[in-house]
Amino acid sequence: MAPVTDAGTIESRVRIGVLGCGNVGAALIQLIADRGDDILARTGLRLEVTRVAVRNTAKARPVELAEGVVTHDAGGVVDDPDVDLVVEVIGGIEPARTLTLDALKAGKPVVSANKELLASMGAEIFDAADAAGVDVLFEAAVAGAIPLIRPLRESLAGERITRVMGIVNGTTNFILTRMTEDGTSYQEALAEAQSLGYAERDPTADVEGFDAGAKAAIIAMIAFGARVVAGDVYHEGISGITPADIAFARHLGYVVKLLAVVEELDGEIAVRVHPAMVPSDHPLASVRESFNAVFIEGDAVGDLMLYGRGAGGFPTASAVLGDLIDAAVNLRKGSSAHIGRLGAARIRPIDEVRSGYYLNVEVFDRPGVLAAVASVFGEHGVSIRSMEQEGLGDEARLIFITHEAYERDVAATLHDLKNLDVVGTVGSVLRVVGDH
Amino acid sequence: MAPVTDAGTIESRVRIGVLGCGNVGAALIQLIADRGDDILARTGLRLEVTRVAVRNTAKARPVELAEGVVTHDAGGVVDDPDVDLVVEVIGGIEPARTLTLDALKAGKPVVSANKELLASMGAEIFDAADAAGVDVLFEAAVAGAIPLIRPLRESLAGERITRVMGIVNGTTNFILTRMTEDGTSYQEALAEAQSLGYAERDPTADVEGFDAGAKAAIIAMIAFGARVVAGDVYHEGISGITPADIAFARHLGYVVKLLAVVEELDGEIAVRVHPAMVPSDHPLASVRESFNAVFIEGDAVGDLMLYGRGAGGFPTASAVLGDLIDAAVNLRKGSSAHIGRLGAARIRPIDEVRSGYYLNVEVFDRPGVLAAVASVFGEHGVSIRSMEQEGLGDEARLIFITHEAYERDVAATLHDLKNLDVVGTVGSVLRVVGDH
Repeated sequence: MAPVTDAGTIESRVRIGVLGCGNVGAALIQLIADRGDDILARTGLRLEVTRVAVRNTAKARPVELAEGVVTHDAGGVVDDPDVDLVVEVIGGIEPARTLTLDALKAGKPVVSANKELLASMGAEIFDAADAAGVDVLFEAAVAGAIPLIRPLRESLAGERITRVMGIVNGTTNFILTRMTEDGTSYQEALAEAQSLGYAERDPTADVEGFDAGAKAAIIAMIAFGARVVAGDVYHEGISGITPADIAFARHLGYVVKLLAVVEELDGEIAVRVHPAMVPSDHPLASVRESFNAVFIEGDAVGDLMLYGRGAGGFPTASAVLGDLIDAAVNLRKGSSAHIGRLGAARIRPIDEVRSGYYLNVEVFDRPGVLAAVASVFGEHGVSIRSMEQEGLGDEARLIFITHEAYERDVAATLHDLKNLDVVGTVGSVLRVVGDH
Repeated sequence: MAPVTDAGTIESRVRIGVLGCGNVGAALIQLIADRGDDILARTGLRLEVTRVAVRNTAKARPVELAEGVVTHDAGGVVDDPDVDLVVEVIGGIEPARTLTLDALKAGKPVVSANKELLASMGAEIFDAADAAGVDVLFEAAVAGAIPLIRPLRESLAGERITRVMGIVNGTTNFILTRMTEDGTSYQEALAEAQSLGYAERDPTADVEGFDAGAKAAIIAMIAFGARVVAGDVYHEGISGITPADIAFARHLGYVVKLLAVVEELDGEIAVRVHPAMVPSDHPLASVRESFNAVFIEGDAVGDLMLYGRGAGGFPTASAVLGDLIDAAVNLRKGSSAHIGRLGAARIRPIDEVRSGYYLNVEVFDRPGVLAAVASVFGEHGVSIRSMEQEGLGDEARLIFITHEAYERDVAATLHDLKNLDVVGTVGSVLRVVGDH
């Protein structure tokens, strides 16, 4: 729409080296080709992909690349004087770490989609970028296409953020959506996710919360300016969730979601990933299928939610391209976004974190059982918010929702409940978040 | 969290003149006081409110201001050599327009929350900012606290946006939520909104879509880089929505929302505000009470939604503060965000816009009536997607949902239906959007 400015000169070219040409890399190269004229019109800059590093140069790619562009020498791309700016979409720690640090040291901005790297050594990388006075941007590393890092860093720069809760793993959200809407078991829903390509053959990284944990660490760094790494994140996955849990949740007005929760509590950072019951009228409850969303609570801003595609070649490449344009404009201005040094903060252990809880307890149906069970809660200072009883022949099922309580007190309650002779089994325990 | 950098020097001070000290202005001054140390730590800049222009200097304010800061001379604040940067939270066209242009001409960045001004002469203001090489930022002018303008301009800089649909007026969303959830009439819900302070005594600007129309014009400018003004926006309000419409919508799997819809169609811009039926599993459907949300569709990015508080002193001030920090950092760097000249684009008239439609037609219950009615649709090329019939004694009600059709063809269908002797009355007509 905007008119083309005087461009095409040497100064207006920004030459890009792309490390990795999988789904995201190939989609990015395609987008740069398709959108190049419009980007030139808006910014006065011509983005030009001059080098692409791939593992296997013989492999066919969905994008056309000029002779001499493709190489298997990623280090050579970083060092190439014909590369002004580096995009890293290889993933993993090495060689991505060395390549990123080398590029920054050479004064080349880096745009990264690498959550593992940022979650394990974000502070080191931010320091290297600040020392070199160039950008390291990584919108695509968390929640794919959703503008999250830039709003946290810029739009909310003056805000005191208190909590961020995210559905940041599309695979598990797809599985939980199928279990909720179709009543399928975890195993059936996982198999469906695998057949659709949403889940890996070995789904551990997704379903046990490792992927969401890395993203939680990055969110904590950006939201609170604190050094947090993936290893700091407490995580539980969804493989133990049963159709019965989901049915009880629905009956009680909740849906089950895998949440990354990041909070600042008296100067300490609590960061965790676990399944949670979310009230069905909470905005996160309506995030279905493989979509992601991040819910942000701040002192002045109130509640915000950012929703969109968390993965996929083109959505992720769109986020990379937004960063790329920003970094290219800054590079030509001789400017860069300031991240600031991350501060040290104590990571609050899960035992010291408070939450509401859902507990599903099977008891023998005899007089006095509720009093016995309730007194265990009371001994540990865990306050019951609601209880429902359901007959099961000789047995009964008691469903409790507690008020906010410390994890350690709930753990102690569970321990004592299991030792009570009127208690059969203690089923699932789920945290309850987002209640009003 | 981040350590305090070497600040407090003259260079690190950015002196701010605030025009207007109502809800938003007072909340902003409060936030700058509360968050100043943290902003200094993150950016190295000390924000200092040196002048505040108010209409009535005698009026008590909820914030403390030093002697000599408050004045009723807004022009003097803009000209004051002790003001580096101007915040305009007066609203309306004049004197806001003159003050804004004067500030920009003097090389002072402007942060504005003024939707009327931007929607009536955004292009003139953007040109003045670009000519002066300083920022004009206005995140707070559309959808209050929701980061929208910055994601559109930066995160999605490389994206081909195809459509933006927003719930951008909290008053009408509150009224429609009450009508949907409590079954109240429009008048009752409006009275409740008025008693809670969500609606003005004269609610016209909100309920007839003028407020949403101004925001739609601004969204169109930013999303498509096109000159669009409030007068280009077709708008219909919600005062004609009945509890019956809402009940039918629910029965058919929809909710009724007042939407601002902005599309690029073959290089033309379609921009309109009207009530619409939205599928109940669409993310916009779950936006309740006075919350706002903006749903963005792009070629590569897929679907995005940004959700939050659209109004209120502190939420709006939080958005102003994010812009203020950005503008202050840019000012000290001698840099500014480039908006680019807005292009001219034809505004597509509503007659030429396509949508699905819901029609509620009362007919006399006699043989052949459905055939007669259906043939009118057929004559105008309006294809019926679904029909339900409901008996009403001698009469029947026919509820149609159409496939996408041109507004002019639906208007012609309605005209002919009204002339059909088997048709009693034609009730509400609502557009249907967001269907899969």
